[in-house]
Amino acid sequence: MGGPGVVHIVGAGPGDPGLVTLRALELVRRADAIVYDRLAPRSLLAEARPGARLIYAGKAPGRHALTQEEINGLLASLALEGLEVVRLHGGDPLTYGRGEEECLHLASRGIPCDVTPGVPSFTAAAAAAMAPLAARGYSSSFAVTTAIRAGGAPVEEARLEALARAADSLAVLMGARSLPRIAGVLSRLDPGTPLVVVERLGLEGERIIDSTAGEARGIEAEPPAVIIAGGAASFRRRWLCLTAGLYC
Amino acid sequence: MGGPGVVHIVGAGPGDPGLVTLRALELVRRADAIVYDRLAPRSLLAEARPGARLIYAGKAPGRHALTQEEINGLLASLALEGLEVVRLHGGDPLTYGRGEEECLHLASRGIPCDVTPGVPSFTAAAAAAMAPLAARGYSSSFAVTTAIRAGGAPVEEARLEALARAADSLAVLMGARSLPRIAGVLSRLDPGTPLVVVERLGLEGERIIDSTAGEARGIEAEPPAVIIAGGAASFRRRWLCLTAGLYC
Repeated sequence: MGGPGVVHIVGAGPGDPGLVTLRALELVRRADAIVYDRLAPRSLLAEARPGARLIYAGKAPGRHALTQEEINGLLASLALEGLEVVRLHGGDPLTYGRGEEECLHLASRGIPCDVTPGVPSFTAAAAAAMAPLAARGYSSSFAVTTAIRAGGAPVEEARLEALARAADSLAVLMGARSLPRIAGVLSRLDPGTPLVVVERLGLEGERIIDSTAGEARGIEAEPPAVIIAGGAASFRRRWLCLTAGLYC
Repeated sequence: MGGPGVVHIVGAGPGDPGLVTLRALELVRRADAIVYDRLAPRSLLAEARPGARLIYAGKAPGRHALTQEEINGLLASLALEGLEVVRLHGGDPLTYGRGEEECLHLASRGIPCDVTPGVPSFTAAAAAAMAPLAARGYSSSFAVTTAIRAGGAPVEEARLEALARAADSLAVLMGARSLPRIAGVLSRLDPGTPLVVVERLGLEGERIIDSTAGEARGIEAEPPAVIIAGGAASFRRRWLCLTAGLYC
């Protein structure tokens, strides 16, 4: 008679097909329906079985193909058809992905839901830039924030400043268009703060910009971008010096 | 005549074999030598090709089979034999893994080195506990710290307090034995702060402990453990209420 299906909330990682987990691949391969974000790797979607329903849920900056409420409703209705559903998020579903809201909605309707974490974008950005967020002698703690809140409002400058003061390194997600503002806040603490931006993370044309808080006030970056400032970015400088054969 | 080989610094994720990335698996399968930590999944090591050298580098708490300097030297000497070497870290290599130190040492000797990020332990703990570190309405920012510095000294209480004040959620790694102390600091801010501990993360017998900062002062947990406090743990409470069929 068939009860409800199940929804797997799955992190696809930061875009690089090699950073997909084995479980994400396995779940995509056996799903009856896949609801995916803009940043899910195409190579992963290509692993869906013939006949699986692939549904685009959007999440380009400022434009959503479906609202979050519509996504919640869609996931529920697919599961209530008895399907095994994969909800595929870029990065990690519980790191600004709203995967937790999806699970809450599903649970309220009695639909089973589980979460498979993914490599978060800031972790991938740190590796791409050799800017370790937690590294002996450089960064014993780090803070992560978004530049733009879910409602579209920018994160308060006092909050950014408190995070930058408390932690050795700061990672700011969804920071491409907000770089001048973020850099402005950091440069009030110290304009020489090392800062690195990984733009178009995990995509064709990924690029790393080396700067300081003071200089970065004049830069705009291409999304998706992660800004890393502080101790992690200091390590990157040492790395660049060494690999350039300089004595520093 | 054969120049140096290469060293791939690879994150194996938090222990769960399903959270290994496709690139990590590919690199392990073709490696000539694998230098691995205590927390690398055995199922991943089983994918090494016949004849590959498997070398245990340790990293149990307080006891290292090899010192970091010995690991650096070992990686260099394997690569200088012309081998393709994988250095396998639990979690992510640049999140308290010292993968960056390994790369720096290799680069100083002219040996190519690259980094493959992994799912960090705190991201996996958040998913296991449904305690989202970045979730609309619960946690717009989070901080990550270790409980014990690389030299063995505990992280200063003033630092812990500043991180807890600045960020909506706090994740503390390597926190099993330090739970009473961490909880003590957090309970000075608010003894009712929701707190969740994921102990034996990614291993047989993984267990989630729900508590508050005030209560957790009396608890010791089994390593490896991740402590998550604040907004992320508040979300978990709502989740537990809902899935228990309570109205909360």
